[in-house]
Amino acid sequence: MVKERRPRPWQVMREEQKGEFDIFTVRSMHARSPEDGSVHEFNVACAPDGVAVIAVTPGDQLVMVEQWRHPLQRVTLELPAGTMDEGERPEDAGTPELREETGYEGSEPEWIGAAALNPSWQNTRVHAVVVRGVRRAGEKELDEGEETGVRCVPVADVKRMVAGGEIDSATTVAALAAFFWRREAELDG
Amino acid sequence: MVKERRPRPWQVMREEQKGEFDIFTVRSMHARSPEDGSVHEFNVACAPDGVAVIAVTPGDQLVMVEQWRHPLQRVTLELPAGTMDEGERPEDAGTPELREETGYEGSEPEWIGAAALNPSWQNTRVHAVVVRGVRRAGEKELDEGEETGVRCVPVADVKRMVAGGEIDSATTVAALAAFFWRREAELDG
Repeated sequence: MVKERRPRPWQVMREEQKGEFDIFTVRSMHARSPEDGSVHEFNVACAPDGVAVIAVTPGDQLVMVEQWRHPLQRVTLELPAGTMDEGERPEDAGTPELREETGYEGSEPEWIGAAALNPSWQNTRVHAVVVRGVRRAGEKELDEGEETGVRCVPVADVKRMVAGGEIDSATTVAALAAFFWRREAELDG
Repeated sequence: MVKERRPRPWQVMREEQKGEFDIFTVRSMHARSPEDGSVHEFNVACAPDGVAVIAVTPGDQLVMVEQWRHPLQRVTLELPAGTMDEGERPEDAGTPELREETGYEGSEPEWIGAAALNPSWQNTRVHAVVVRGVRRAGEKELDEGEETGVRCVPVADVKRMVAGGEIDSATTVAALAAFFWRREAELDG
């Protein structure tokens, strides 16, 4: 196995806030290279961590949401997901997030992993939790300007829908990979 | 299968640029709800699309890179990836990206899919291409301030490394899911 030297840490010299928008802020980090001591500036878009919910019905379907996504100017099919409050646990955030976006409720959420949204210039992590035995428990409670269409998708179809591009949100796909590949690792192990 | 009405498009009334940083710009979109006609503002972080390269050696290993990631303040293990120029095809961007970050070269890249980085407030898509038969062809050609450690990982280990969190970049995992699940769909189909 080829393996070169692991890159070493850079030392952060100073940080400053450069912009503030509703969902994210932009911070500038000035950091010193461990190679040659030179200082470079890196802009980072900072946003709260999130949680994506893999909600499985007794009939082995996933409860997913269709939404109009302004940046893409189209409808996507994604896992129910949202941002977490400071200090909140993904397991605690998952239940209300699922309830509000879909009207479904189930078991206590089980944490299965977390993905880094974009290590290049963002600090956000999106956790994945699994909720089993979910059933419709009431109406959705959406924020103003939010509209979701609930769509239940057989678990057996999900990998094919990712392969075909019908499910293409990176954090949704990363959560699904954690879900399927943990299960495979358990079966193998 | 539960399926509610698919959300309808919002009409964009106007857009304006609100911030410019090296890698991304922030644009504000004012859009009208199809439900009640109200106009809401959405901030979008706009950055060029990217390409992630699944580079497979003759010995069935993936050529991956370790990098110090400033936003996360740690080293990650990711696919070689970078941004594309306006109008560039992922298949054309993949070869130089792989060469510069790792020193490896192989077959013509094959496009296998694309992931939306963050449909909530970003417009960026990251394409995935597969390059086969890769071999070390020379030295890396990194930008200033960039340092990568090349690490070859057996394809057979990759799913377990995602399940265990050792590989956790969302776009890397999304590209790997497209790679494995297309293969499964072909085997099934």
